[in-house]
Amino acid sequence: MSSTEGKVICCRAAVAWEAGKPLVIEEVEVAPPQANEVRVKILYTSLCHTDVYFWEAKGQHPLFPRIYGHEAGGIVESIGEGVTDLQPGDHVLPVFTGECKECAHCKSEESNMCDLLRINTDRGVMLNDGKSRFSIKGKPIYHFVGTSTFSEYTVIHVGCLAKINPKAPLDKVCVLSCGISTGLGATLNVAKPKKGSTVAVFGMGAVGLAAAEGARIAGASRIIGVDLNSSRFELAKKFGVTEFLNPKDHKKPVQEVIAELTNGGVDRSIECTGNVEAMISAFECVHDGWGVAVLVGVPHKDAVFKTHPVNFLNERTLKGTFYGNYKPRTDIPSVVEKYMNKELDIEKFITHQLPFSEINKAFDYMLKGEGLRCIIHMEE
Amino acid sequence: MSSTEGKVICCRAAVAWEAGKPLVIEEVEVAPPQANEVRVKILYTSLCHTDVYFWEAKGQHPLFPRIYGHEAGGIVESIGEGVTDLQPGDHVLPVFTGECKECAHCKSEESNMCDLLRINTDRGVMLNDGKSRFSIKGKPIYHFVGTSTFSEYTVIHVGCLAKINPKAPLDKVCVLSCGISTGLGATLNVAKPKKGSTVAVFGMGAVGLAAAEGARIAGASRIIGVDLNSSRFELAKKFGVTEFLNPKDHKKPVQEVIAELTNGGVDRSIECTGNVEAMISAFECVHDGWGVAVLVGVPHKDAVFKTHPVNFLNERTLKGTFYGNYKPRTDIPSVVEKYMNKELDIEKFITHQLPFSEINKAFDYMLKGEGLRCIIHMEE
Ligand SMILES: NC(=O)c1ccc[n+]([C@@H]2O[C@H](COP(=O)([O-])OP(=O)(O)OC[C@H]3O[C@@H](n4cnc5c(N)ncnc54)[C@H](O)[C@@H]3O)[C@@H](O)[C@H]2O)c1
Ligand SMILES: NC(=O)c1ccc[n+]([C@@H]2O[C@H](COP(=O)([O-])OP(=O)(O)OC[C@H]3O[C@@H](n4cnc5c(N)ncnc54)[C@H](O)[C@@H]3O)[C@@H](O)[C@H]2O)c1
Ligand SMILES: [Zn+2]
Ligand SMILES: [Zn+2]
Ligand SMILES: [Zn+2]
Ligand SMILES: [Zn+2]
Repeated sequence: MSSTEGKVICCRAAVAWEAGKPLVIEEVEVAPPQANEVRVKILYTSLCHTDVYFWEAKGQHPLFPRIYGHEAGGIVESIGEGVTDLQPGDHVLPVFTGECKECAHCKSEESNMCDLLRINTDRGVMLNDGKSRFSIKGKPIYHFVGTSTFSEYTVIHVGCLAKINPKAPLDKVCVLSCGISTGLGATLNVAKPKKGSTVAVFGMGAVGLAAAEGARIAGASRIIGVDLNSSRFELAKKFGVTEFLNPKDHKKPVQEVIAELTNGGVDRSIECTGNVEAMISAFECVHDGWGVAVLVGVPHKDAVFKTHPVNFLNERTLKGTFYGNYKPRTDIPSVVEKYMNKELDIEKFITHQLPFSEINKAFDYMLKGEGLRCIIHMEE
Repeated sequence: MSSTEGKVICCRAAVAWEAGKPLVIEEVEVAPPQANEVRVKILYTSLCHTDVYFWEAKGQHPLFPRIYGHEAGGIVESIGEGVTDLQPGDHVLPVFTGECKECAHCKSEESNMCDLLRINTDRGVMLNDGKSRFSIKGKPIYHFVGTSTFSEYTVIHVGCLAKINPKAPLDKVCVLSCGISTGLGATLNVAKPKKGSTVAVFGMGAVGLAAAEGARIAGASRIIGVDLNSSRFELAKKFGVTEFLNPKDHKKPVQEVIAELTNGGVDRSIECTGNVEAMISAFECVHDGWGVAVLVGVPHKDAVFKTHPVNFLNERTLKGTFYGNYKPRTDIPSVVEKYMNKELDIEKFITHQLPFSEINKAFDYMLKGEGLRCIIHMEE
């Protein structure tokens, strides 16, 4: 039994007080976990574009003050009533979309969109009592997607925690908690390219490059990377991407350029940008008859996907996915094992490291499109 | 060898001289088949909404004078050079989307969109020489989707003819040449509902009811029929449809009504209307996590499919299909066998019969939404 069990923990957290303003490291109070909740000591966290979108709150619902962060690795500090799957000391990855194991989605082979614990970016409180576990001098601070990992301690529903091999280095596997699993699964679980097929990936951030890595693992013969930022292409070469296209370099829509390069279109495409124009291009660039496009990027709340219905009639398929269709508790432990067995290389996604006190620099890197994942060390 | 082989045949055809004007039965000249072509004596033809759309030419490219018709049954009169699969006397169903058996699509297991012979509603001539085989006093009359079955004789590419069991009654199985196979295949080959699942079908015409029939065969537990014309519902009861919705009877969008009736949405939906609003509803009414929607209707040429991309991200799938993904030469003979073995009931789709001279009445029935398929008898 830890000495902190059942007590409020005071620790450091990076609080977003206002949209788009630098986070402020504050002393926060973290309440003990309630029923089906777990309090986790976060050791490493990284930044995913989804944090940035909701922090910028340009095309998203604003909710402040808030503690962002959802890609992380940590150790269970204490457990609430009714938690049987985890105990203090367990190594865990928090996941923004949970798995209750009881609803129709959790029981379905096809879905990972748990009715109880699916991603909810508008909710800033815990399910059990509709309140926050974070406060500053008694004033509540909102949670983000049930994880809020930009804090030394956080409280998470047991269904949003994947228990992983304690030998796995948390400063590496923390990136499997969101971006890398998302991209990898989008290709392997949803797009499912056959050996020898052609694949286009839109967006060469960590999620897109993980999708490209999935295509390489599946044996794709050509992997076409598309990004508006050509500086991404140098990095992308490490991920099996064989060709690069910057839509800005072409007068025609990029879907037409891709169709010309591939005799009518790619077999599969995966969109990892969040930009609705890229979503449309990703759909329209797949081959008629058999092409499948998969949307991964989180769109602006007012975005509209538009296309001529004949593009569907011509036997194209469009799907979307959260978290690469992985069920966090059931599937993620084995993705971690893939890394442990050296089937999966995740280190190449980690381009920066920062102490927690410099977390705002990680936002700068992402906004400038520098590097892929920046690991933030909570203990300095 | 038939006495007409190699000669021009003069016969009756129903010619559309102008958009939306009654067809006129004319004496036409039908040239002999050229390389890879077959001249077919049509015995029975029926009318499908696609004929009506292109005849009305409201939202479609106009091309007149033209001989419409693509749902039919006939007998081979003579064959052109290089035709080895068929010989005079064979019973055939013409199909608007062909199968060359050599292109990437024909070789793919997933596609039936033959590169050479896929549906092309803008082409009014034969591929071999870019000319028409029909003329009136030497002046060419355009073909329609390579079939033009509103003529006692027509010339068709060998790849657009399914050779069928000569014992199958052509006045029945002619409806498998388009509408019924389209709807049936859209469900069985594309939507693939599991046993016990819920299915919505938009459009209770012959195509939609064939889709419903497919859902019944697949063991769906609930089949929700949606149509703007409530008089269709009486007929639909014969096709396993268990519930009916007329969007006009509800203030909310019909997709919301369906979501309420089905605890979040149907497992599968099939759109068989051609109306883009129905396409959007059909997509948005499927359950998140696993729902699959299939578009079948032929849209207006300026139609735009619009939805919020989060509807895809929430793990819904949207696909489209021509001819229910059946490959005409490879698959249709066995669909005919299903009818012969009484696994498939097609007679209930046939609600009217007319002599060829009264073909315009079949247009009236369809425009008024009366009945399903009207069999037009070429020999009176
Ligand atoms: N569905 C999910 O479960 C899930 C999970 C994690 C992240 N996401 C989303 O995935 C997307 C990628 O995340 P990331 O962390 O890799 O972000 P990132 O910012 O590192 O990468 C995005 C890349 O897309 C490029 N881009 C933007 N607009 C483009 C366009 N129109 N055409 C081509 N390229 C374009 C950018 O230049 C950038 O390189 C984001 O939208 C994020 O919110 C979704
Ligand atoms: N993809 C293909 O291969 C293929 C093949 C054949 C037919 N089609 C198309 O399938 C569609 C159906 O053909 P059909 O012969 O059964 O036509 P039909 O006219 O007999 O039936 C269409 C039905 O849809 C209903 N409808 C129209 N708009 C609607 C709306 N917004 N909501 C609900 N119901 C609506 C009509 O009232 C009618 O009952 C047509 O668009 C036709 O062109 C496609
Ligand atoms: Zn993320
Ligand atoms: Zn669940
Ligand atoms: Zn038709
Ligand atoms: Zn072909």
